[in-house]
Amino acid sequence: MTAPHRRQVTGFSNPLVKYLRSLRDKKHRRRERRFLAEGLRLLTDARECGVLPETLVMATDRDPHPLLTALEDAVHVAGGDIVEMEPAVLSKVTGKDNPQSVAGVFAEFDTRLATLDRAKAPIWLVAQALRDPGNLGTMLRTGDAVGAGGLILIDDCADPFSVEAVRASMGAIFTQAVATARWDEFIAWLRQGDGQLVAASLCDATDYRQAPYAAPCFLLVGNESQGLPQAYEDACDLRVTMPMLGRADSLNAAVAGAVLAYEALAALRPGS
Amino acid sequence: MTAPHRRQVTGFSNPLVKYLRSLRDKKHRRRERRFLAEGLRLLTDARECGVLPETLVMATDRDPHPLLTALEDAVHVAGGDIVEMEPAVLSKVTGKDNPQSVAGVFAEFDTRLATLDRAKAPIWLVAQALRDPGNLGTMLRTGDAVGAGGLILIDDCADPFSVEAVRASMGAIFTQAVATARWDEFIAWLRQGDGQLVAASLCDATDYRQAPYAAPCFLLVGNESQGLPQAYEDACDLRVTMPMLGRADSLNAAVAGAVLAYEALAALRPGS
Repeated sequence: MTAPHRRQVTGFSNPLVKYLRSLRDKKHRRRERRFLAEGLRLLTDARECGVLPETLVMATDRDPHPLLTALEDAVHVAGGDIVEMEPAVLSKVTGKDNPQSVAGVFAEFDTRLATLDRAKAPIWLVAQALRDPGNLGTMLRTGDAVGAGGLILIDDCADPFSVEAVRASMGAIFTQAVATARWDEFIAWLRQGDGQLVAASLCDATDYRQAPYAAPCFLLVGNESQGLPQAYEDACDLRVTMPMLGRADSLNAAVAGAVLAYEALAALRPGS
Repeated sequence: MTAPHRRQVTGFSNPLVKYLRSLRDKKHRRRERRFLAEGLRLLTDARECGVLPETLVMATDRDPHPLLTALEDAVHVAGGDIVEMEPAVLSKVTGKDNPQSVAGVFAEFDTRLATLDRAKAPIWLVAQALRDPGNLGTMLRTGDAVGAGGLILIDDCADPFSVEAVRASMGAIFTQAVATARWDEFIAWLRQGDGQLVAASLCDATDYRQAPYAAPCFLLVGNESQGLPQAYEDACDLRVTMPMLGRADSLNAAVAGAVLAYEALAALRPGS
């Protein structure tokens, strides 16, 4: 194997630097259909899932690491672009004072519902109008942990390809399928096959510990401040509720999804 | 009752404005032993828990609301300071472009372990080196939901009185006790009385669904990136683990705490 060729990029006004910075912005991500992921751990997760960055960016002051060598070799073999830049320039790209010393540009995944194979997993997470990218990433991470097939984003959600969501997913953006859809599209797709739609409800509903979960089980949580619209709850096969013993009437959306997902996992895989 | 007197505060350089802004900063909060909470909902939660702000700040362009009237009356009766300022000035205080139209300055609570009454609740949450204020607030919110007594913060954690933590707690900062302690102080206090210390462990440990939880049950989660130090796990009465079926080896700290807390709740209060 020939040694990887590393392009040197200097200066804040270099077009590549501008391009990379622009990917922090949803509008530009949408247009380019590309997203940024930062850090050796995240990029190694991607590589181990068979996903490589089109462009690998490394700081000139990076420490050597066998995983970084493996990553660079893999990108080189795949014909990707390998770029070195000064830490100060990379800071501009990542928008942080103490940037990771490595980042990558990835092609966005296909997020159409039609790409999902519902028979692939017993649990799927569904979020409606989830606005916080940290919550979104946390749901991806939880989905990975419970062996979910993926996360379906309904209505106007945070962008799963934002740097914050990718970071909070702790690599699960590369293992979990992600689909985006309007509610009516989702319901039409769901009802074309097997699938139990379960709402995390704030109303009087079935105790989440006693509910008859059935695979493939689609666990739906609502917007952080509004919860689920009533019409959406009405369309569900099952509405479940968790004890709320204090003053608050709801849980954090990612927490509600996780408590429900672990309960469904225990019910659907009693041995796990 | 006499009508509340509203002081008008104008200009960004007013000493009160500077004081309020300084409370966004941990160093100043520590010195003043005061913290900021924003929004009518949060301040109403506080009032209903019997906690009133020393200073109530309202935007001049606020919409009238019966809950705001109730809040203002209560602060007036208690002898608190009531201040009106232009939205642009309040923006400077809250650090946001679209600020809430009401904010309050509260005295920090006593966070010594000695203030906790462990017999008061079957579940207590304990976090070690929890760095993210959002996670901290989320744990307070979860604690409220499961009827926990409070959150004990071990070692160097995020500040529970930061605006971000207070906001993420969704009012639970006013219902949950908060204590801060070094690990050795905490263990010494814990062993003075009843209490089962349970670690959310990443190691081979008891299945969290099969564990013999006993009240008062102290559920310990570790730092976001490092997990718990081995010595801390060794000092626990029980180490429990959750299924991790995917690539990731851990859950978000607030998620792990919540899944564990709901499991302990089900075990300790079978009827709930």
